[in-house]
Amino acid sequence: MVVLGIDPGSLNTGYGVIRQSSGVLSVLVCGVIRLNPRRTHAERIGEIYHELAAVIADFRPEHVALETAFLSRNVQSALKLGQVRGAVIALAMNRNLALHEYAPREVKSAITGRGAASKEQVAFMVTRMLGLTVPPKPFDVTDALGIALCDLHRGESRKAFLPDEKVKSRGSSWSKFVTASPDKVVR
Amino acid sequence: MVVLGIDPGSLNTGYGVIRQSSGVLSVLVCGVIRLNPRRTHAERIGEIYHELAAVIADFRPEHVALETAFLSRNVQSALKLGQVRGAVIALAMNRNLALHEYAPREVKSAITGRGAASKEQVAFMVTRMLGLTVPPKPFDVTDALGIALCDLHRGESRKAFLPDEKVKSRGSSWSKFVTASPDKVVR
Repeated sequence: MVVLGIDPGSLNTGYGVIRQSSGVLSVLVCGVIRLNPRRTHAERIGEIYHELAAVIADFRPEHVALETAFLSRNVQSALKLGQVRGAVIALAMNRNLALHEYAPREVKSAITGRGAASKEQVAFMVTRMLGLTVPPKPFDVTDALGIALCDLHRGESRKAFLPDEKVKSRGSSWSKFVTASPDKVVR
Repeated sequence: MVVLGIDPGSLNTGYGVIRQSSGVLSVLVCGVIRLNPRRTHAERIGEIYHELAAVIADFRPEHVALETAFLSRNVQSALKLGQVRGAVIALAMNRNLALHEYAPREVKSAITGRGAASKEQVAFMVTRMLGLTVPPKPFDVTDALGIALCDLHRGESRKAFLPDEKVKSRGSSWSKFVTASPDKVVR
């Protein structure tokens, strides 16, 4: 299983591709797309789309995992962040990749066991879980790797809960559960 | 010149492709993408991307024209609108199309002569300018056609002002003007 985790931001977008094979986790690539403030917002969105399209072409992830948006009070920032997220979502849909979204608390909790963990703690645990010698910088990268790890972790729980190998999408709805596990439902 | 005008919205996205050839304007296609509220926001964004990608493949516009975002006070709506706009901008960039953005007042003023015109007035003038018998509905479609007409109109003024045929991008910056018209600048 190969997962691309993305931490989209209006200034920097972190990304990381993790492969899980026979229980061994390895980072295939990770980095940050820093947007050039001199370019127009359209050019910046085009840049994010192109860079992530290249990552997808090179490392062929099966899932894309995103954090749900953290909403500030500022409408202008929400619009900018929305534009970046829209480009990322459009790309995942365009490549027919499953897209999973997780709340920031969910990611922190999956990585550190604590929903209110700091970015430093997430970076520390991500580095440890992936067997890296030093934490990749900046935090946008460790956050993105954390999102990918959270998705792999959730995938494991999904499999344990739903033994049907064909269930690839997020098993959050009751109807999916019923379809996947008719033997577990009393009708 | 063929222009695709888009009026992006979190519920409905209007679009219209207009061709201007020897001064004659004709609508090649127009319509509205109504998003299915039962689908996830990611699926909806994927749908907008796919539908507009098909319009671009079929009618090969040279420009994409968008209205700048009208910002409500609601952060959640700004994020949703941003996501739709991000998908549209990513598509235009991905197809190497010039993207022009106009403020709503600018569009209304170019179409009706009045920056505070109502949607009905814009629909009336768009119908008239394009020689249509009845106004296309809903207003998302006439708004999108208005945005395309505004872009064609601005293109004309750009040409009148900057006789260099090669100047295709929005001639808003002084440095572009200086490069395009060295004879008009006293050094």
